[in-house]
Amino acid sequence: MSGLKRSWVSSANGAGCPFPLNNLPYGVFSTGDQEPRCGVAIGDMILDMAAVQARGLIDLGAPDLFDMPYWNDVMELGPKGWTALRARLLQILAEGAPEQAELAPCLVPMAEAELHMPIAVSEFTDFYAGRHHATNVGTMFRGAENALPPNWLHIPIGYNGRASTVVVSGTDVIRPNGQIKPPGADRPVFGPCARLDFELEVGAIVGGNTEMGQMLSVADADAMIFGYVLLNDWSARDIQAWEYQPLGPFQAKAFATTISPWIVSAAALAPFRTPTPTREVPLLPYLAEPGPTLFDIDLSVAIQPKGAPRATTICRTNYREMYYSAAQQLAHHASSGCAMNVGDLLGSGTVSGPERENRGSMLEISWGGKEPLTLETGESRSFLEDGDTVTLSGAAQGRGYTIGFGACSGTIRPARNFDQRGDHP
Amino acid sequence: MSGLKRSWVSSANGAGCPFPLNNLPYGVFSTGDQEPRCGVAIGDMILDMAAVQARGLIDLGAPDLFDMPYWNDVMELGPKGWTALRARLLQILAEGAPEQAELAPCLVPMAEAELHMPIAVSEFTDFYAGRHHATNVGTMFRGAENALPPNWLHIPIGYNGRASTVVVSGTDVIRPNGQIKPPGADRPVFGPCARLDFELEVGAIVGGNTEMGQMLSVADADAMIFGYVLLNDWSARDIQAWEYQPLGPFQAKAFATTISPWIVSAAALAPFRTPTPTREVPLLPYLAEPGPTLFDIDLSVAIQPKGAPRATTICRTNYREMYYSAAQQLAHHASSGCAMNVGDLLGSGTVSGPERENRGSMLEISWGGKEPLTLETGESRSFLEDGDTVTLSGAAQGRGYTIGFGACSGTIRPARNFDQRGDHP
Repeated sequence: MSGLKRSWVSSANGAGCPFPLNNLPYGVFSTGDQEPRCGVAIGDMILDMAAVQARGLIDLGAPDLFDMPYWNDVMELGPKGWTALRARLLQILAEGAPEQAELAPCLVPMAEAELHMPIAVSEFTDFYAGRHHATNVGTMFRGAENALPPNWLHIPIGYNGRASTVVVSGTDVIRPNGQIKPPGADRPVFGPCARLDFELEVGAIVGGNTEMGQMLSVADADAMIFGYVLLNDWSARDIQAWEYQPLGPFQAKAFATTISPWIVSAAALAPFRTPTPTREVPLLPYLAEPGPTLFDIDLSVAIQPKGAPRATTICRTNYREMYYSAAQQLAHHASSGCAMNVGDLLGSGTVSGPERENRGSMLEISWGGKEPLTLETGESRSFLEDGDTVTLSGAAQGRGYTIGFGACSGTIRPARNFDQRGDHP
Repeated sequence: MSGLKRSWVSSANGAGCPFPLNNLPYGVFSTGDQEPRCGVAIGDMILDMAAVQARGLIDLGAPDLFDMPYWNDVMELGPKGWTALRARLLQILAEGAPEQAELAPCLVPMAEAELHMPIAVSEFTDFYAGRHHATNVGTMFRGAENALPPNWLHIPIGYNGRASTVVVSGTDVIRPNGQIKPPGADRPVFGPCARLDFELEVGAIVGGNTEMGQMLSVADADAMIFGYVLLNDWSARDIQAWEYQPLGPFQAKAFATTISPWIVSAAALAPFRTPTPTREVPLLPYLAEPGPTLFDIDLSVAIQPKGAPRATTICRTNYREMYYSAAQQLAHHASSGCAMNVGDLLGSGTVSGPERENRGSMLEISWGGKEPLTLETGESRSFLEDGDTVTLSGAAQGRGYTIGFGACSGTIRPARNFDQRGDHP
């Protein structure tokens, strides 16, 4: 964890700045009526990469890589291209770089920019790889004796999610409608979710392609991960409870998934690598970890009700709590010969820790609604209410610097009435 | 079911021809070293739509609609565009059409063409909407008393599948590897699937977009379906049995899904509309059928082992056996506010019928492997063997004409060894 790398962008050198030269995360932004394009966060500024390339200050061997509303084309360059990109950025943004004068006009104040989805999501897969979360949820649903399914210690359990509703931080989340079977009722009703939840997760962004039929080692999978974001896997617990047997969550998870706007590269996180926890039973060889593939990233969740003067932090945990890493999940994903693509997004599963204050969902925090939480502003919460803003935060703490992720935030809007569902477009 | 519409393409008028003027299905083809482009099947020929548009013989108000390797751009035109396209094709391909001389050079013999995926698949969702299949599988896995899950008669149960491995008929299918827990074993092993299966399904292709948060009536959903294909949801039953609790099938279904190459339009199938079966319990209003939304389509499955002189038909059934239609599935899919997109593919679920000869998967035909099937050539089958070619066929029978789908076929290749998995690209 070598110390802070100093930049000529002075705000990047401030104590606790989430975007020092060590970080250089990748996002997509727009200003005024300009089209969204690729940018890199540095201090309180965004480096307009389209402008940088237009001035000939970076050359990765392909034109128009950055005048795009996503980083997919850069990902297609592969790890060598990613390394060259980061090396060049570290060079030209470093304190004393001769390019400073030429680059300065390419900086845009972050406060003036709108942030967009950083990638075109190819497919979204969500995992269930947090030991504490799986144990908590399993205990609630199946009892303490049957908390962990028999396959859980062998397989990074996952399911395919919905890519069409992955949205960037700041996008409102409309409370979903769905089939719900009230306790004791004979039949389900259709109506607004009454047990709306968040899930604190980390998302891994796949930056390579595999052919159908090709398998991946964990080492190769690890090298294919372009970077990481925070991810909120919004969940409708009452819809989920009624629909999920036998084929898994479907509409309960389909209405929205929020990610943070900045992709923190695997390279920036390299100093924070940490191995997965000790195995209770040995893993099959295809899932063996070749070296540390998890990361030490502090995570937290805050809720701010509409009109409340401040947010209450309701969870603090760390990504290193996961039982399986994203590299192991990706290796498992490809193990059947499933083709993986640039832009695939893998959700880690809820990152809970061992204590109540480490629980990464309302379902766990309120223990299925039985133990409501009191916020600092006095409100009580078992699940999310309309107007609540949920914000996930994440940071890796180096010696003298911080690798921040930027907020992953969403505000709950009231459910729509089916009769006002809108016309077919 | 008004009779055969006659075409100046004489092969289209032959008895039993799957592609008469009444059909006009949409595909993507190539010849020689030309790029794949859009075509329409008529008799034993393909009408090269890129050539038709280049000659100014069709005008839908947008350029370059057909010189594309998918029909997605045409789908984006919406139902009015689809109606205009079909009306124009019916006009210019009809017997006596004055355009015959100009069009003739745009015809390519089907025998000389290679067929490709007809659409770019946005996302793939697979349902479980066949009453007989769900009852058969549920009886095997949970016993006759618990065969149908309690939600089954209320919800068109579905799960998100993997779009990256949807392939066109004729693509080889590599037997997948995966975690399998042998009967009586303490721990799983990693190796080739020993219970490889097909599932006979019909795929619906979504031709419109909805916004996140928007819901759909069944009538609007029905109007958004561009057309239908045959779909083989290849399944690894041993991988599935070990992995599917609690979040559903994942790698067991991720290695391949095969579709037939021709999209049969909803318009061509209009004469074959039929209502879903009588409800055992009333559906919630958002799923109510506004008119007949299923179709009377005969379906069959044949297996031909490697080197066998002929294929054996092992299943005959009909799409009208489904309990839920694709329109109902799509309305349910959007009910949470899940955004739907042009190119989304919805698998019907396995189309089994009431008798053994109507069962649409080996799992059902061999009753979990306990009652092996003997093929006409003498071989016995509980599940699929390397070298087997599985072909799904489908046709709607009108008075004096047939609406065919073209074959949906795939041949099983041996599993790869993990140590020869190939390098990371």
